[in-house]
This record gives sequence, C-alpha cells and structure tokens, in this order.
Amino acid sequence: MPNQQSRKSNRTSGSLPTEPKSVVIENVTPSIAGGRHSVKRVPGEQFTVEADIFKDGHDELEAVLKWKTPKARVWQEVRMLPLENDRWSASCSFNKTGKYQFTIEAWGDSFFSWLHDLERRLDGDQTSFDTEFSEGSQILLSASTRALSTKKPRASDKSDSDTFKQLSDLLLTKASPQSVVEALKAPHVFSLVRRWPDRHLSSTLAAPLPLVVERPKARFSAWYEFFPRCAEGRADKHSTFRDCLPRLQDAADMGFDVVYFPPIHPIGRSHRKGKNNSVSCKPGEPGSPWAIGAKEGGHYSIAPELGTLDDFKWLIGEALDRNIEIAIDFAINCSPDHPYVKEHPEWFFHRPDGTIKYAENPPKKYQDIYPLNFLCDDWQNLWREMVNIVLFWVDHGIHIFRVDNPHTKPVAFWEYLIAEVHKKHPDILFLAEAFTQPKMMQALGKIGFTQSYTYFTWRESKEELSEYVTELTQGPMRDYYRANFWPNTPDILPYHLQDAAPAVFKIRAALAAMLSSSWGIYSGFELCENQALPGREEYLDSEKYQLKERDWNSAGNIKEFIKRLNQIRQENPALHEYANIEFIPTENDQIIAWIKWTGDCDQAIIVIVNLDPKNTQESMIQLPLEKLGIPAEQSFEVSDLMFDESYNWQGHSNFISLSPRSKPMHVLKIVK
Amino acid sequence: MPNQQSRKSNRTSGSLPTEPKSVVIENVTPSIAGGRHSVKRVPGEQFTVEADIFKDGHDELEAVLKWKTPKARVWQEVRMLPLENDRWSASCSFNKTGKYQFTIEAWGDSFFSWLHDLERRLDGDQTSFDTEFSEGSQILLSASTRALSTKKPRASDKSDSDTFKQLSDLLLTKASPQSVVEALKAPHVFSLVRRWPDRHLSSTLAAPLPLVVERPKARFSAWYEFFPRCAEGRADKHSTFRDCLPRLQDAADMGFDVVYFPPIHPIGRSHRKGKNNSVSCKPGEPGSPWAIGAKEGGHYSIAPELGTLDDFKWLIGEALDRNIEIAIDFAINCSPDHPYVKEHPEWFFHRPDGTIKYAENPPKKYQDIYPLNFLCDDWQNLWREMVNIVLFWVDHGIHIFRVDNPHTKPVAFWEYLIAEVHKKHPDILFLAEAFTQPKMMQALGKIGFTQSYTYFTWRESKEELSEYVTELTQGPMRDYYRANFWPNTPDILPYHLQDAAPAVFKIRAALAAMLSSSWGIYSGFELCENQALPGREEYLDSEKYQLKERDWNSAGNIKEFIKRLNQIRQENPALHEYANIEFIPTENDQIIAWIKWTGDCDQAIIVIVNLDPKNTQESMIQLPLEKLGIPAEQSFEVSDLMFDESYNWQGHSNFISLSPRSKPMHVLKIVK
Repeated sequence: MPNQQSRKSNRTSGSLPTEPKSVVIENVTPSIAGGRHSVKRVPGEQFTVEADIFKDGHDELEAVLKWKTPKARVWQEVRMLPLENDRWSASCSFNKTGKYQFTIEAWGDSFFSWLHDLERRLDGDQTSFDTEFSEGSQILLSASTRALSTKKPRASDKSDSDTFKQLSDLLLTKASPQSVVEALKAPHVFSLVRRWPDRHLSSTLAAPLPLVVERPKARFSAWYEFFPRCAEGRADKHSTFRDCLPRLQDAADMGFDVVYFPPIHPIGRSHRKGKNNSVSCKPGEPGSPWAIGAKEGGHYSIAPELGTLDDFKWLIGEALDRNIEIAIDFAINCSPDHPYVKEHPEWFFHRPDGTIKYAENPPKKYQDIYPLNFLCDDWQNLWREMVNIVLFWVDHGIHIFRVDNPHTKPVAFWEYLIAEVHKKHPDILFLAEAFTQPKMMQALGKIGFTQSYTYFTWRESKEELSEYVTELTQGPMRDYYRANFWPNTPDILPYHLQDAAPAVFKIRAALAAMLSSSWGIYSGFELCENQALPGREEYLDSEKYQLKERDWNSAGNIKEFIKRLNQIRQENPALHEYANIEFIPTENDQIIAWIKWTGDCDQAIIVIVNLDPKNTQESMIQLPLEKLGIPAEQSFEVSDLMFDESYNWQGHSNFISLSPRSKPMHVLKIVK
Repeated sequence: MPNQQSRKSNRTSGSLPTEPKSVVIENVTPSIAGGRHSVKRVPGEQFTVEADIFKDGHDELEAVLKWKTPKARVWQEVRMLPLENDRWSASCSFNKTGKYQFTIEAWGDSFFSWLHDLERRLDGDQTSFDTEFSEGSQILLSASTRALSTKKPRASDKSDSDTFKQLSDLLLTKASPQSVVEALKAPHVFSLVRRWPDRHLSSTLAAPLPLVVERPKARFSAWYEFFPRCAEGRADKHSTFRDCLPRLQDAADMGFDVVYFPPIHPIGRSHRKGKNNSVSCKPGEPGSPWAIGAKEGGHYSIAPELGTLDDFKWLIGEALDRNIEIAIDFAINCSPDHPYVKEHPEWFFHRPDGTIKYAENPPKKYQDIYPLNFLCDDWQNLWREMVNIVLFWVDHGIHIFRVDNPHTKPVAFWEYLIAEVHKKHPDILFLAEAFTQPKMMQALGKIGFTQSYTYFTWRESKEELSEYVTELTQGPMRDYYRANFWPNTPDILPYHLQDAAPAVFKIRAALAAMLSSSWGIYSGFELCENQALPGREEYLDSEKYQLKERDWNSAGNIKEFIKRLNQIRQENPALHEYANIEFIPTENDQIIAWIKWTGDCDQAIIVIVNLDPKNTQESMIQLPLEKLGIPAEQSFEVSDLMFDESYNWQGHSNFISLSPRSKPMHVLKIVK
C-alpha cells in the first residue's frame, strides 16, 4: 500500500518547530519598529497592551500580559481580556523607574474549554455525562499536582492543591450535572484555575518588547529659559551666576520647575558675532553662547564672565531649594578657539589644503562655528568624548539637557549617547531641539529623547491645533514622542507674536500649558516682548548676541496669568498626563475646547480658549455627558479654576462667551 | 582641566555600534509581521517597495532597492526615488518563481552632496571656487579608483575609471564654474556616478525581508468543482473517473482551468451518513467523501468505486490535454475505519476509558469522523505524515490542493507543511477553505496559503462589495492574501441564490469572475440549481451524501454566459491581475462599477453590473478620464466585450442602462 511505502521512505527533512504551538499572537501594540525601540511611560501611568490572539478550533483561550525588569527572573502578569474580533487587551502600570520588558503568553485552557463544552452539552439531549465528568476530574487532578510542583510549595499552594482534589472528587460523585457546573462556575474556582493553568503548550512572543519608565518630570514639566548673563536686565553689565537668584525666584513664583540655560561655556573670540548676528563684533560684545570654546576651555568649562564651577553648583543648589532643576544646553558646536581644534583636529571637516572647515549652509557662512565630523576616522573616540561631556555635568548636578540641533548629528550617535548615559543615570532627561522634517523628529523620540520640541510654535487655528495635538497624542507617537510646547524660543519669535498685544501672549501660553503636559517659555515672553527683525521670525536685538536691558516687572506683563496656569497644572492630575486629551465640538471656529481626562471623571478638566485676541467670541460647546457620568436632564455646576467663577449648566450643549482682555479662557472642573 | 581628566578616566563602557551609520531606513512596506512572512508575487507582477529614508544634516541621499534569491551572492538593484516627506519608492518585478530576499541600501552621496553644495554657492557672492573644485576633483578621483577595484575589471570599468579621471582633471583646469557644473550635470555623468557610488558608510536594513514568486496560476485561475461520482448525472449509478471526460470537456468549454474534486479516497462505513446528512444510511448509499478511510485504505488510496490510481492518472492527463489542472481536496478527516485508527491510535483524542473520540461541536455530533490531535505526544510523526500524503499526490501529478477547514488545525502546522512541500515543489498551490474569523483567515494567508476563500459568498450590496474588495486589494492583505471568489460551494447555497432566477446566478458569476482574478463555481451553479434545505444555506439532496441526477445541459443554464466571462478574462491582461481594481462612482445604488487597470491605460477594463435581478437600472457613471488619458471634450468609443456592442461616450459622466435579463452587465474597453 502506498501508505506504508511513503512512511518508510521518510521523505520529509523534518524542519519541524520545536514545540507544537497552536496559539497565534500577532500585531501587538504598542510596539515601536517591531520592538527595536522602547515604549515610554512614567510611574503610575497606564500601560495598555493589545494583540490579536487566536487559535485553531474551539478551545477557550486565556492570555496574560507579562512584564519584568531585564535582570529579574520572575515575570509579573495580568490577565488579558478579549475585546472583539480576536483582539485582546490588558493594562498595568509601573511603580519604579527603569527598563522593562513585556510579552504576552496565551494558551487554550483545558479546564475552561472542557467546562464550556460541558455547558453546551447540557443544552442538548445528552443524558449521561460520565465520560465528560471523568475527563473534568482528570483535568482538575493534574491542576492539583501542578499546585504542588513548585520547589517549595507554600501552605496556600497545598490548600489550592487540596481544593482541586476535592473538585476532582466532586465530579466523580453522582451529583446532577447542573449542580456540578454551578459549583465549578464559582468565582473562587475560576481564580483557583487561573492560578494554576496548564501552560505547557502556551505561545509567547518570539522576543519580549522593551519599555522604559522614566521619572515623572519626563512627562510633566514647565520650563523657563533665560540667559544668565542677562539676569539683571542690564545692557551695561554682564550678569553672573551669583546674579541669577532673583530670576530663579521669579521662575519659581511663576510655577516653573525647570530653568534652562543656553550654553554656559567659554565663548570663542575668532569671528565672534556682534549684535543682531553681525559678522563683526565690537570690542566688549559678548558673542553667541553657542560658539563654544576658547582658551579658557571647551564643553567642560564655564565662561569666566559667568563665574566658576563652584558658583554654578551654588546656583544649582539654590534652584533645588525652590523646587527647580537647572537644565543646560548640550550644543555640539565648536568655535575656532575650542581646545578640540588643536587637540583633535581629526574630528573636524578639512579642506583639501588641510584647513578646517567652518559651518556653512550655502550661501550662508558661519565662520564662528566648526562642525564636528561624526563619521571621521576617529569617530569612536569623538562619540565617547561626547558621552563624557554629558557625564561630567551629570556629576556636577545637571540632570536635564536640552540638546541643540540633534538632527544635524547621526541618529545612531544619539541612540548610543543616551543609552550610555542612562546605563548609570537612568533619570537624566534629554529635550530634543529638532525643528525639522517630521520623520527625523519622530526618529529622535524613538531612539530615546525624553521630550521634543514641536510645530506647536506655528500652529494657530482651531483646526491646525486640534489636528496636530490629535496626531501627537492619539496615534503611535503617543508611546515614544513627548511633545514640549513652546510659544517662543530665542530663535523663534513667530509672526503671530510680533507686535502682538498681551492677549495673544496669554492665548499662546494657555494653549501651550493646557494642551501638553510639558511646556516652556523663553524669558521675555512673560513681558510680551514682541519686536522682531523685519520680515524674519528672529528677535530684534536678540540676547543671543548681546546683553539686554529689561525691566523684569515691566507694565503689562502676564506673570500672574502664567503663575495661575502653572498652579492649576500642579493642582490637577488630569493635566499631568500627556495623551489623555479629547477635543470637544464647538460651533465657533475661534473657540477651541478640549477635555483632559483621568480615570476618575470628577477629575476631568475642560479647557476652552478664545483664539481671537481682539473680539469676544461666543459658542455653544458640546460636552460628552455620558462619559462624564452626568444625566442630560440634571443641572450641574462648573467651576472656573482660572477666574474663580462658577456657572450652572445643563445638558450636552452649553453657552460660553470669552473676552480676549478680561477672560480669554475657561479652565473648568465639574462640581457635581 | 576637567577636559583631560575625563578623557583619561575613560568612563564609558563603549557599547558603540560597529560602524557610524547615519542613514535611517524605517517603516518598509510591504513587510508582513516585520518580515516574519513572505510577500507574494507572480512572475512579471509589479513589486513596489516604500520606506522612510533620511539622515542628519544636508547630504544628498541615494537609495537602492535590492533583491536576490537566498543562495545568490550578488544582489540586483534598482534606484529608489523620493516621494514626499522622506518617503522613498522603487519598483521591480521577477521573471522566475522561487524564494527571494529584498532589502534597501541608502547613503549620503559624496558627489551629489558636493555638487548640490557647489550649485548653492554659485547662487551666492562667492567668487573663487578653487577649494570646492579641489574637493570635487578628489571625490571623482576616488570614484576612478573604485571603478578599478573589482577583482577583474572589465573594459567598461576601465573606461569608467578613465572618464572619472578626465572629469577630475577638468575640475583642476581654470574652466568657469558654470561650465563645469554644466558638464557634471550631464545624464551620462550621473549614470556613471551612480554606477560607482561610495557606499562604505551606507545603511542597510537589519535583515532582508522575504518574498516568494509563485507560478501565474497562483494569482489567475478559474475553478470548477464537481463530484466525480456524479459525473454522468445519474442517481442510479456511481460514476467513475473514466466517466468524467464529458464533465472535463464541459469545464474546458466553459473556460475553467482548474477542476477541483472533493475527496477521492475510500469512504468509511461506520456511522456513514445518509441522504441530507441523515445519521443512518440505507444500503448502497455512498456516504460523505469527507469521511475518509476504510479497509481499502486512507489518504493514500482511491475509493474503488471511482476506479484505480491508474484511472486517476489517466484523467489527470486528459485534463492537462484540455489545459486543466485537477485539484484534490486535502481534508484531514478520518472515518472510524481509517487505517490510522489501528496503526496510530495515539494520533487521536481519547476518552478516559481509552476509546477514541468522534468529532463534536456540542450539541452536534459527527460520529462518522475522528479528528486528529495535532498536539498529541507523537505530533512530530503525525505532522510529517501529513506532509507525506501531500507529497504522495504531488508525485502522482496533483499540483493544486484545496485544503478543507485549515482553521481547525494549528497555523504552525500549515506553515510547516507548506514550507516542507515547497522545498522540493515550489509550484504546489494551496487554497485555504477557512470560513471563519478574519484574523485566522488572514493568518493562513500570511503563513503560505496561495489562495483563500472569502466572505464574497455573502456580500451582496454595492456598499458591501466595494468595501470588502477594497479591504482585500487596497490594504496590507493585498501582499499575502489572494482572494478566490466563489458564489456557491457544496456547503453553501447562500440565501440570495435560493429559489433565485438565472439573472441572479449571472450577476453573482459576473461579480466573482470580474472582481477577483481567481474565482470558482461548484457544479450545478451553471444550471442555476437553487433548492435548499428549508431555512438553511445547505443544498437540498446535497450530493455530499448521495448520487444526484442531473441534465448537464438543462434548459435555462448559463453556461454560455460563464464561457464568455472566462474568455474575456483570458483575453484581457487587466483581469489577470489581482489588486489593480478601483471602484468608480455611480449614482444608482443598484449599479456597481469598477476599473481594472494595467500599466497601459488602453488595456483598462471597465465593468458595470446591475445588482438588481428584477428591474432595469440606469445610472450616470463617473469615469476617471485623466487617468485614462482621454480629454474631457473628446468623444470616444467603448466596446462591450460581453455583448459585442459599442457606444459613443464623451466626458466624465456617461449614461448606462442595464436590464437583468438581456444585459445585466457591461465589460467595456475603450477604443480611442
């Protein structure tokens, strides 16, 4: 017979799998580039995993989401539940910062499959269930054995084993099938069965996926940027670190918890830039802090005109006393006077005649900057040196770095640098200042930057803002890209702020502070500074190139407004979360509204902003009452946290009226 | 100085990448589960790859799509071109069937970056370009060296090298920058540069992605299913393979190129099913062919009442003479009389008392079937044996298998079986008969099934049909799931065909044959058989359980209509392709219309079907004239291939009127 012939010929070469797995687990979210990069979370933040899980036949499936630190031996786990169409889901959160792995394990469960099968039989015309009970008894008996199979069974294991044994025995009595099924469907039996499942043919993801839990400030932070040399607001005197205390206090009073300094290193003298980016500078002009390096030192040194390392450490301490962390700028720019130019000429770009190239973006020339060649022959030492710079400042108390133009250095370099720093110092935060193409900005988030600058600075209309924020927070970016919203920077005074009234500054601050969990301003914003170089988005008389005279309490400032924004942020957990935003419909295109949710609806914050800085705008706004747990016929009070007022509302649709000068926005909380 | 201290301390542990790669390649499509499964193509079919490709800084990027067979040493390649937003694309196709790998390589190109930089300088106020020319000269000189760096440089390499040298020299003459740029921008120089790029710092995907090129019938096929035992259409006599010739000829005349037989193996006697799935059968009743195995043998044997293996081989030959391949059913069902029951009782499911379990879907019982336990202790031998069965029939001339209920066996088993069979016989096609949840159906396509049954059988309205076909052909499924559209099967007489007029059968045939590149009918469809078991989608007096009397040329048959459909399919390349479909707007919901494109617009086929079997329906339909290359003001002729008529049309919007009885559809080709 052909049957035997073929079997004897044993023709197949036998690349069988090692085990006969039958559950398929696919399409796991979140997963960044198939697990190449880490999902980001902070302690306590919800982490929800979904996957397609299914198997052949009709077995009842069980699945668990599992996680552990890379070195831990034991996985923690939580049961996944089916959604629809073979999609499963589970959520967990993490208490401690650090790296984690997560995976999914799923199996066809022998007990639940058997029970489901038995219940269906009870619906038919079958009369004897001896065979089924005998099978069930065996299934429970093996569970009883499993409960004792750990190396050192605990008393609770012994008790579990006994319970299984009793249930197994119950099935062999002549009890009625209905009563047996009733007994087995008790919640404590299900819990027991789920404690000791038979997973010997379970499927698991081919490789666990990575996740990193960063400290809370990775997600929730309010930044204030100022030039320490301009701390006193004097054009005639270079301020020092010791002069910065009033500025620090002001930042603390406004409710900021990160103060970020442009580069604090010695500034080059060769080709030093003058006022308004002039190619020549007059004697005494301070130059751009981004032209780093002089005979006094490079990236490890402090510009003598700012003070000493000790002065800086004193300032860091004073900041911490005010609940503020100082962030510095990591700008990989070298002036022609940087020590590297002599010590490591091989790290730079060279012309055929051997001279070192300055930076150019033809036809523009930046003679005060020598770019480093990250792909030079000695790249390994160059890359290591950059890590050393960061570690040096970490050792001196800096735990947050704003990184200048990361998109002009290899993505692989940043991946290496951040990983190296995080090996010893997982709490170091990096803010990517990449204003460039979206894919590059996303890539920098994926490979490890904690936070990122965004296009918020140029998004103005309701449609632009809601589209952009929805893209950031409701799509895949939510798991790796934390947007930090800045209305201005030393490089950008957007057109809508130029010559603009304080109302515009308030609107932009309100949007930044309430749309994202991290926001920041560059000093002067609170004073509504609005003078630009004609036709450009650059500040006129920018303090990038000169000392600047300022009255830090000048009339018309919006410091109180900013302080209130930051206070409300601090006091309301919904504003600490990042991706918990949902825009709500308004009839008027000048009125934008959204809700920031927490798990608890009583904590929801409703923000409504008038985007028109000139006219009062009115609109009906549509509340998702069902999600808020409010019956449509019941009136409720909303309390405005910004202006200490209350309104009585009822139903989905409610009226609002916002005046740009007196009340440009509502920040509402529902008082039930 | 801190600078030197830190460098000496050498604190970083140095997990540097092996090379300083700077190009990022991400988000490659198509890629099935990150490269876990193969993209499917047939010879000549367009294969378009897209990816996000970008790097830091301002270099000019070059990228190539590369492919080869797994064992080949040399990659073939084609240049990728940028679309927008850092997305790149390239297309190729494959002449030969077999497995392939593809990958992407990308690099910042030194020559093009230099040239682009130079051009931007020319726009500025720079006057001397000696430095730039000197650099360019070096870049060209290294290209000259590269052209000779292969082991055995050909004459053309030598010539390329010389050209580079001349261009390099040209840059050192005192020619005007404009004239030099002009010379370098000549197309032949660009080709030359692209032949010898400097890729020493290029990036490549971490791992190549798999692709399989299958024979043309994997994509384009027309199936006709009949029960050989009913070939003569007699209720009183069991037909044999030798009686099948007229049926085969009929299938060939109707234009089918695959004839598929339900299982041809000995049928079990124990618990044999009678007429209409009765649990008892009368003497002489033939039983269900899916209850495989009797004392005459199992899956390697032929039911004696059909004839011998030689008879079958003769029939396969007769079919081939008519351009038809015979497909058999691979149904892993065993009757209680199957040889395995005695030879391999360990392969079955057992009750606690040791008896073997029959199939059940409680409360339904299938006593004539013993399912195999694919996860039994001896699973390896069982899985190997299944491969052997397929290989046995391959050796006897069967190259297409319709697989019965694959979703009731482990997905991993099918992945193994198909891979094993394809190792020696890459041209074997497998059609998955999985009518189940979408994720499982998709998974079976991903792991290797050539074609799959679909929900088409139940999709009726214009919206349902266009949504479903769009999902199949315009989303990720297009690369791994080839839909085979069946209006009926022996198991399914859908409600819309029950008691239905021939017009309905024509509509369903037209939809199946023209929407997908593969379609099939179960015999009787062409005779408009429409009698069902009351309230079910099962045929009344199904030949699954009995011999059936039929006049294969009964009045009212639609054989000519089907023949014309298959002829048009054969004659028009646009209908050989699968995913080349685009629905076009019509005003009437009873009128569905679409275009099947080829690269050549003159080959486009426009299909318009009246979904209403009772009434004439009229509509304006909207043609994409721009894509068809027809000016809006120009009249053109459309020729109906189905009914040999022509119409004069003009503009985007044209009128059609379809009558269910005389002309239920148009199949139009444009005659310019």
